Amino acid sequence: MKAPTPLEALLKDRVAVAIGGELGAIEAAIGREIDSPVPLIHEMGEFIAGAGGKRLRPILLLIAARLAGYQGPRAVRMGCVVELLHTATLIHDDVVDQAPLRRGRPSANARWGDDASILVGDHLYSKSFALMVQDGDPRVLETLARATVSMTEAEVFQLERKRSGVTGEADYLRIITQKTASFMSACCRIGALLGRADAEQVEGLTRYGLDIGIAFQISDDSLDFVADQARLGKAVGADLKEGKRTLPLIATIERAGLADRDRIQGLLKQPALSPEGIEEIRRLVVKHAGVEYALERAHQYAQSAKSALRPFPDSEDKETLVLVADFVVDRDR
Amino acid sequence: MKAPTPLEALLKDRVAVAIGGELGAIEAAIGREIDSPVPLIHEMGEFIAGAGGKRLRPILLLIAARLAGYQGPRAVRMGCVVELLHTATLIHDDVVDQAPLRRGRPSANARWGDDASILVGDHLYSKSFALMVQDGDPRVLETLARATVSMTEAEVFQLERKRSGVTGEADYLRIITQKTASFMSACCRIGALLGRADAEQVEGLTRYGLDIGIAFQISDDSLDFVADQARLGKAVGADLKEGKRTLPLIATIERAGLADRDRIQGLLKQPALSPEGIEEIRRLVVKHAGVEYALERAHQYAQSAKSALRPFPDSEDKETLVLVADFVVDRDR
Repeated sequence: MKAPTPLEALLKDRVAVAIGGELGAIEAAIGREIDSPVPLIHEMGEFIAGAGGKRLRPILLLIAARLAGYQGPRAVRMGCVVELLHTATLIHDDVVDQAPLRRGRPSANARWGDDASILVGDHLYSKSFALMVQDGDPRVLETLARATVSMTEAEVFQLERKRSGVTGEADYLRIITQKTASFMSACCRIGALLGRADAEQVEGLTRYGLDIGIAFQISDDSLDFVADQARLGKAVGADLKEGKRTLPLIATIERAGLADRDRIQGLLKQPALSPEGIEEIRRLVVKHAGVEYALERAHQYAQSAKSALRPFPDSEDKETLVLVADFVVDRDR
Repeated sequence: MKAPTPLEALLKDRVAVAIGGELGAIEAAIGREIDSPVPLIHEMGEFIAGAGGKRLRPILLLIAARLAGYQGPRAVRMGCVVELLHTATLIHDDVVDQAPLRRGRPSANARWGDDASILVGDHLYSKSFALMVQDGDPRVLETLARATVSMTEAEVFQLERKRSGVTGEADYLRIITQKTASFMSACCRIGALLGRADAEQVEGLTRYGLDIGIAFQISDDSLDFVADQARLGKAVGADLKEGKRTLPLIATIERAGLADRDRIQGLLKQPALSPEGIEEIRRLVVKHAGVEYALERAHQYAQSAKSALRPFPDSEDKETLVLVADFVVDRDR
């Protein structure tokens, strides 16, 4: 595997120094949560939790909590809550998309079947719920309730758009805002709520999380067209194959001339896209600079995320969040 | 359709007089919750919520709340919470079982696909969660958290047993206790917590719910062997076809002579059970009085449920709960 980018390496160092201990505690807490008298839960939980996720959501929560001046055990518990919730949504997403791979390994559904994946996803969701109820803070519970309603609604909306075969830029932004970004926003907001942040700061971190969430997802969707496959951990063009219309493609369709647009739309109408069809669309997206367009938008959101941190005085933690904003749009996996 | 049994008719009258208004309010609340800017959510929600469920869980919650002396708006909200949660689990269960029918109509998965059913199930779960967070009572939240962890764990355990091809009576009881009964128990407990019940009464209602839950599920599983198909709303033998080993079958295998046992186990080992195979097993279960054995057990649990109400003085609401206990083991659908 390729070495991490310099920014990724720098960020890793910063994160390790600032919150390495707490991240370790979250790993241990996740391990305890997926431990179960039912072997299949334990086995699937270990496989999925040990699959090397970026732990971006707990990291956001922990740094936001530090920035808000929080010191105490609740951040670790809430970090475990959001990672379990995230894992549950990934498992269900992979069933819905019939994805064969996740992070370079077979997906849970490929390995244990759709039925087991649906049920273990539900179980992890319920474990996350039980853990947040133990925390009990009504503002935190309300934040997570709102985020999960938003995420699950967006999932259905996305499916509806996929089935209709039409997704414009506005629909796309609505989907990723409600799905990816609202959850990252909730993580940052919870961090803020744990600490002594004032109302303006809570809103600032909430907004920061929303903006980097949008930037993160656009960047993620761009990687589907240009990434190094081995480093990405799944096939390039996987989203396309699953029928997802993401920003690089949407921008290309809007910018291409009549001939290329007709060609793309003809290919997209086929019931099952062939590898050659995927490669042809990929080439047309590159030709019409669809990825550049998308990444330009991602950078704008990352910029806006940084501005949202204005209510906080300069500090090392604030700098780390600025680095996170740079990282989400400058990564190769 | 056949007329309801006399007990069902009596119970319906009682329920209508005591909590008819609140049940109507719950229907309206469910309607508001499934209303959505996303047409697919609204469409599927209407179809499923309008499919004529028994609303047994909200009924239990409302009567338990009355018995505990509660008067106020929270019982309606919590009734909506538990029915949404129940609906979400039904939708996922039907995907997992690949069930073609639910309540005499195509299941959600048969009509809208597995993907839409998984996502709409998740959404209804999150709506239920958001609504219980609005209520905010930590004891109620904790009750629901414990019940959902228990239910989802049991679902995975059940799948594991199904895959192994072996389910004994102890495993069966564990599954239905954790799955069906823990949820009905939570409904009764929430009713008790809303009111002014003392600790002994809270435990009494919690125990009552658990026992009728077990009785209900055994009775449900027995109907799969002997019900009037049109009245049941799904094919007789559907559980058998889905590979579920329920008490009438487990008892038959334990009680039958060597020849019949080998015959049943040979049939069960086939990758896909034919209609003739299902009918043959059904006849052997009838021959060895597997259903009688199961219903005898169900009656014992119903009896135990009634005893659990001892901490309450006699009243009309207590009598209604006694009727519910009789009804769950004496029904034809």
